[in-house]
Amino acid sequence: MASQHAEMDQVVQKLTDLLGKRCTTAEAVREQHGHDESWHFPSAPDAVCFAQSTEEVSEIVKICAYHKVPIIPFGAGTSLEGHVNAVHGGISIDLNDMNKVLRVGQEDLDCTVQPGVRRKQLNEYLRDTGLFFPIDPGADASIGGMASTRASGTNAVRYGTMRENILCMTVVLPDGRIISTGHRSKKSAAGYDLTKLYIGAEGTLGIITEITLKLYGIPEAISAATVCFPDIEGAIQAVILTIQSGIPVARIELLDEVQVDAINRYSNLELAVKPTLFLEFHGSEAYVKEQAEQVSDICSEFGAEGFEWTTQAEERTRLWQARHDAAYAAIALRNGAQIWATDVCVPISRLSDCILETKQDLEESFLIAPLVGHVGDGNFHLSFVIKKENPEELAEAERLNGRLIDRALAMDGTCTGEHGIGLGKKKYMYREHGEAVDVMATLKHALDPDNIMNPGKIIPDQAAE
Amino acid sequence: MASQHAEMDQVVQKLTDLLGKRCTTAEAVREQHGHDESWHFPSAPDAVCFAQSTEEVSEIVKICAYHKVPIIPFGAGTSLEGHVNAVHGGISIDLNDMNKVLRVGQEDLDCTVQPGVRRKQLNEYLRDTGLFFPIDPGADASIGGMASTRASGTNAVRYGTMRENILCMTVVLPDGRIISTGHRSKKSAAGYDLTKLYIGAEGTLGIITEITLKLYGIPEAISAATVCFPDIEGAIQAVILTIQSGIPVARIELLDEVQVDAINRYSNLELAVKPTLFLEFHGSEAYVKEQAEQVSDICSEFGAEGFEWTTQAEERTRLWQARHDAAYAAIALRNGAQIWATDVCVPISRLSDCILETKQDLEESFLIAPLVGHVGDGNFHLSFVIKKENPEELAEAERLNGRLIDRALAMDGTCTGEHGIGLGKKKYMYREHGEAVDVMATLKHALDPDNIMNPGKIIPDQAAE
Repeated sequence: MASQHAEMDQVVQKLTDLLGKRCTTAEAVREQHGHDESWHFPSAPDAVCFAQSTEEVSEIVKICAYHKVPIIPFGAGTSLEGHVNAVHGGISIDLNDMNKVLRVGQEDLDCTVQPGVRRKQLNEYLRDTGLFFPIDPGADASIGGMASTRASGTNAVRYGTMRENILCMTVVLPDGRIISTGHRSKKSAAGYDLTKLYIGAEGTLGIITEITLKLYGIPEAISAATVCFPDIEGAIQAVILTIQSGIPVARIELLDEVQVDAINRYSNLELAVKPTLFLEFHGSEAYVKEQAEQVSDICSEFGAEGFEWTTQAEERTRLWQARHDAAYAAIALRNGAQIWATDVCVPISRLSDCILETKQDLEESFLIAPLVGHVGDGNFHLSFVIKKENPEELAEAERLNGRLIDRALAMDGTCTGEHGIGLGKKKYMYREHGEAVDVMATLKHALDPDNIMNPGKIIPDQAAE
Repeated sequence: MASQHAEMDQVVQKLTDLLGKRCTTAEAVREQHGHDESWHFPSAPDAVCFAQSTEEVSEIVKICAYHKVPIIPFGAGTSLEGHVNAVHGGISIDLNDMNKVLRVGQEDLDCTVQPGVRRKQLNEYLRDTGLFFPIDPGADASIGGMASTRASGTNAVRYGTMRENILCMTVVLPDGRIISTGHRSKKSAAGYDLTKLYIGAEGTLGIITEITLKLYGIPEAISAATVCFPDIEGAIQAVILTIQSGIPVARIELLDEVQVDAINRYSNLELAVKPTLFLEFHGSEAYVKEQAEQVSDICSEFGAEGFEWTTQAEERTRLWQARHDAAYAAIALRNGAQIWATDVCVPISRLSDCILETKQDLEESFLIAPLVGHVGDGNFHLSFVIKKENPEELAEAERLNGRLIDRALAMDGTCTGEHGIGLGKKKYMYREHGEAVDVMATLKHALDPDNIMNPGKIIPDQAAE
């Protein structure tokens, strides 16, 4: 093991004294912790520690802080911008053993979980309570990872993102101190919003070890619908009018005709190969019906055909499973290919323009990239279907991605709606935020002066402190 | 003028060169800018500057930064914890001339305003668009002040607080640089959440000069209701069940019998002198009816009587005006008295206990203090009716306030749900946040090393950096 860090042997020895076999330098484990699900090339950490408590995380951090060795928190490994890659070596803290639901507050509609709890596990756990946690990024991500990347997904249009659904957290600071970022009350005006500072910080300011989440009552009725449009503009105009009308759609997803074709093949569906909206409505029986009828009327105004809706759980599950399998369907378009997933978010008034110009770009390219969007939020994804060993394809994805981001920024949008910055989008930070990046760098330096917390992520190397 | 700052004459000269008569040291103007609507004793600034643009704010800040002179932003002056008092002297920047609505995005349901825009002015401006801005703290506060104190109010239970309703802001940093904290897209995962850091920072990290707000469609139908309960516990149980049932009440306010008696007198109403809920429902005609009926049923389960609801705009306005006049009604209980307003917020499961123990305290005290609550959020207010020249009354309010806060903190709540820290609650910051206060102090010191931005607010004097 040839580490970048002179004192790594000492660090590993101390961590082994603390954790026994739960500190390992086994190559297979290190390799597994050196990458996420993105196209980014892996960088393995020097060692992996499996922590079992907040106090243990604190001890690990103190050892690493003393030796100024990087620490990278690791959850489900489902991130999409190289968030967990150990680009400066160091210690990966695997939090999957911290996977307990610590409490559920039925009256308060909240719960407290450890960071390794997966979102599906949480909803299984909650089932008998009549409550659920709505945030659904597709992957069965860990709650800690979802907090750290400010994740959202299909029903953020109704329930918000992780940003709106965390009440408070326990965080281990870069020097090993343990703080609470707040309390369980629904509101507070008591000082700086540390909770929000740590949501989306991608492990660069500390390690989240407990999360208190908002929960919601499982709706009395849920209905799902699909509807296809002659063109994307019509679909988006229908979305805008739906939201302007205050109809609280729970999900409203756009799939372009390339993506519809891909999921027809992959999931054995027979959807018309046209721009299509997948919708979901939550509420009472009567209210779900009212919403579906209102949206059906709106869609008709914009030339939609075949609005079909169902309250059958089985049919609904099949539909949403197909939506969630969009990325796998994209991969299946080409033998031996991988996905370079990217996402941007723009004000919804600019969404048509942004998508149409992007599709124009794609038509002129040799790469295929199905498009899906959480269009109620103005957020959409492209999945470049590439072979990453091929430098030409990588360069073309890079070029198209850059153009997509420039376009989104010119429309007062952001270079990522929900995937985060990680390694992949650092280079766009100044273009998006200007001097505000220096403010972020100042915060980073103030809280983590030795730059040991997931270094190389979010803050561009050239940022001034 | 005997300033605490040796170079104040030079500063005023430079500011006068920049602003002409819009920089003033007139005593009446200084006095007016030395206090808010709270009981806190005033501290006048050395001078007041009336800024008209972001660039001008930046120039003023640069002058003050060069001489290390404090700067205190001033909006409507309706804050409740001494937020604008110039406790270390310096320059008050009055932002009331920056009162333009800069743009409205009908398709995006958003708008951008200058910080001096008042909330009533904004809703007047928006009327013809069919949109509205819901946050309603009672007072006709400025949007900049509401952002800076993380304000909320009666319909936060449905629409959230300022925290959830600001997309991005323009901020002048303590060195005069101008940044955007983000963009107009509904979501972003691009770096640290600077927007949220500045919301609730009470002007201690910089000055907000533009705010982009979320807007909502004016509901097709609005209905209001009142219902009274034999006891407070029943009222709160009804609120809990209403929220658990997912009924999206737009407002759900509790008034205790002391407050009901006060508003009966002040607003000429004839409500039963019992714990009472004021409610409002937003939605379609059918949905508003459905919600009112569901809530009526729930209230009956907990012994409520006389559930009355109306969709008449006039009756509704009269009711909510009475609710908003609660503080004036409290003042009117006693000749020549003032109000010491305080608020706490707890998890709703603890709200009954918190209110009942607080009322027990009040019964044993010689002070009167009506109670109103945004109970859907677990947030309630006391208005101590005092004569602040009387040290015994001040001490008693202080004692009761301290007990209230200890109680809320013991219940995993916060010392303030919506008023903010200002001067008045600094002493409770460590009790609430522990070492997290030191993290806040680190952030403050990193961004404002000379401590010129509204010094003496939020961060306790003993905080380590």
